[in-house]
Amino acid sequence: MKLTPIFQEMEIYVRELQDKICKGLEIIETAKFTEDKWNREEGGGGVTRIIEGEVIEKGGVNISKVDGLLPEGAAKQIGVEPQEFAATGLSLVIHPFSPRVPTIHMNIRMFETESGKSWFGGGVDLTPYYPNTEDFKHFHGVMKKELDFIDKAFYPKFKEECDRYFRITHRNEMRGIGGVFFDYLPVKEAKHFELVKRVGDAFLPAYIPIIERRKEEVYREEDKEFQLLRRGRYVEFNLVYDRGTTFGLKTGGRTESILMSLPPEVKFKYNWKAGEGSVYAEMEEYYQPREWV
Amino acid sequence: MKLTPIFQEMEIYVRELQDKICKGLEIIETAKFTEDKWNREEGGGGVTRIIEGEVIEKGGVNISKVDGLLPEGAAKQIGVEPQEFAATGLSLVIHPFSPRVPTIHMNIRMFETESGKSWFGGGVDLTPYYPNTEDFKHFHGVMKKELDFIDKAFYPKFKEECDRYFRITHRNEMRGIGGVFFDYLPVKEAKHFELVKRVGDAFLPAYIPIIERRKEEVYREEDKEFQLLRRGRYVEFNLVYDRGTTFGLKTGGRTESILMSLPPEVKFKYNWKAGEGSVYAEMEEYYQPREWV
Repeated sequence: MKLTPIFQEMEIYVRELQDKICKGLEIIETAKFTEDKWNREEGGGGVTRIIEGEVIEKGGVNISKVDGLLPEGAAKQIGVEPQEFAATGLSLVIHPFSPRVPTIHMNIRMFETESGKSWFGGGVDLTPYYPNTEDFKHFHGVMKKELDFIDKAFYPKFKEECDRYFRITHRNEMRGIGGVFFDYLPVKEAKHFELVKRVGDAFLPAYIPIIERRKEEVYREEDKEFQLLRRGRYVEFNLVYDRGTTFGLKTGGRTESILMSLPPEVKFKYNWKAGEGSVYAEMEEYYQPREWV
Repeated sequence: MKLTPIFQEMEIYVRELQDKICKGLEIIETAKFTEDKWNREEGGGGVTRIIEGEVIEKGGVNISKVDGLLPEGAAKQIGVEPQEFAATGLSLVIHPFSPRVPTIHMNIRMFETESGKSWFGGGVDLTPYYPNTEDFKHFHGVMKKELDFIDKAFYPKFKEECDRYFRITHRNEMRGIGGVFFDYLPVKEAKHFELVKRVGDAFLPAYIPIIERRKEEVYREEDKEFQLLRRGRYVEFNLVYDRGTTFGLKTGGRTESILMSLPPEVKFKYNWKAGEGSVYAEMEEYYQPREWV
């Protein structure tokens, strides 16, 4: 299948973004990323970069480009006839060791089919474990500022989509404090590619200042316990609801690259509840939709 | 909806079995079960008993009886018109602290609808983390002996169904070493109720001798690490594939009772592999269908 020029541009953008983000993260960390290149039997492949360090307990920055015949299930989900397709994107998840540094996830992707359908998807969301609300304001503030440059309607719209998407329905709560999320945005509208690049480029300015500010902060044992339990909720969301994860696992995606998103260490406790009036109870209140900017 | 006599008998059996199993487990443990009674808004409720002890790090033995109008999704899955239904059953999961004592899961249930459809389902499966194959032979041996009493065709058939069901497809492996599993067995055949009771009664003789034999066994740090990583696979199976779990969560079941099955502490590591020739590599070979008796 012949790729469109924008797809090729996206491929280059994604590759450069992986380099930029890995370098940016290595500045706040003594460890380095290690790289795994992999091929997909049916066409394409990817580069998974993993870091296991002192600040970042487990992090992965993965890029891929896959092409070939669209799997039947995928075609059905998207609502097109089985045909050739190509997809490229970057996805990352950073699980810091300290409960004072939030977990972050970001993903951008482009998809196109032989018949000429094409769209962008992606988003970024923050999962903090301690109610440092100035961090949440900073994170949402950076995103709003970036998206406002393109279209004032974007931030409110994609923030709301994010609140809706990253929801652990059976718990009636979000997995974190949201961010922005979008999907099926037509490639033919130029501002959509602009959006994708703004989100990609905003990752470091949105996240690094939070790491810098919190990584040395002294925390309590209870903070760590709360983080481990909330990481359990992160697992619940990813394995039960996240479309990328469940779909990828069930259609023969590369398991290790998909599940790099899971936290390194997790606890599950029966009927655990935050103590009334505790900082954890306060933090839990923020796992509901709220205006941060 | 008027319940059939067999349903009422099953309810009583399930209640007595919960008592028997909890008492049996308390013998090998210093801790005691605590009890949570809960009601279901739409009808019915249950009793969840939880233990967090020295031998059993986290265990739950849950019974429930739910009735009311069949949720639309459930009716569709079962292939009946929306109508009144009743279901009762017991489900348990035991996660021992020591990596030398296997995790075990057991479940029996009966379901009936207003229109007169009714069936039994259930099963028991073992998830060991150390290749003490005599334990596996004991476990499968007890199950085979019990099922052979009723019908010589049962053990081979339900063992195969178990191997197929408890499969982590994206890893191409089972979550443990299997056991027996059955579903949609018509209530009108008397030997099916017999089967359910045999499986329920076999739980203690199948499991307690293994705990007794292994609970004091000295283990290595690497054994614990392997257990924590394999518990990660347990989570992957339960949240991605287990019909009871995913269905329960998505149709408004009691979250805490459903997710009591998750291990207390878990690790996820990128691309982890057992060392060649290690006991863990040997153990991994057993996570494939195999004859144990």
